[in-house]
Amino acid sequence: MSLLSFLLGEKKATASVAKERLQIILAHERAGRGASRPDYLPALQRELVAVISKYVSIQPEDIKVHLERQDNLEVLEVKIELPDVLR
Amino acid sequence: MSLLSFLLGEKKATASVAKERLQIILAHERAGRGASRPDYLPALQRELVAVISKYVSIQPEDIKVHLERQDNLEVLEVKIELPDVLR
Repeated sequence: MSLLSFLLGEKKATASVAKERLQIILAHERAGRGASRPDYLPALQRELVAVISKYVSIQPEDIKVHLERQDNLEVLEVKIELPDVLR
Repeated sequence: MSLLSFLLGEKKATASVAKERLQIILAHERAGRGASRPDYLPALQRELVAVISKYVSIQPEDIKVHLERQDNLEVLEVKIELPDVLR
């Protein structure tokens, strides 16, 4: 299954109202020994949101952040609901 | 199925060598009437890669970009293979 079809499936399951949404997924797969490394994902996420807000007008309350960890994989998911009128 | 388990499944299927990888997925779901809007995803992707390169040392040849479109969903996938030694 492709990532696109996975996301399309998710979309069908959750989205009933036609809204504009932007979803950023940042998956960091560590090579095992990297667990002691400083975790830069939260800082990176803040910068990514700052970059995106140059393109689309986003409000802090429209941003949902979710972080999951399992084994060597760290997945940061940022969901942004876009306003009806873009900049 | 959660996104994490999807990515873990993908990982099991493809990764045999322990390498450090960073994957960015940018999914843009349009609200239907937005098809005529200028597509800012390629420019946004370049800026995102620039931000990430502040945190990790990446070479242009280690970046793989893939764009999929279906209906109102546009999915940009950026896969970055990280070098063994970070900055």
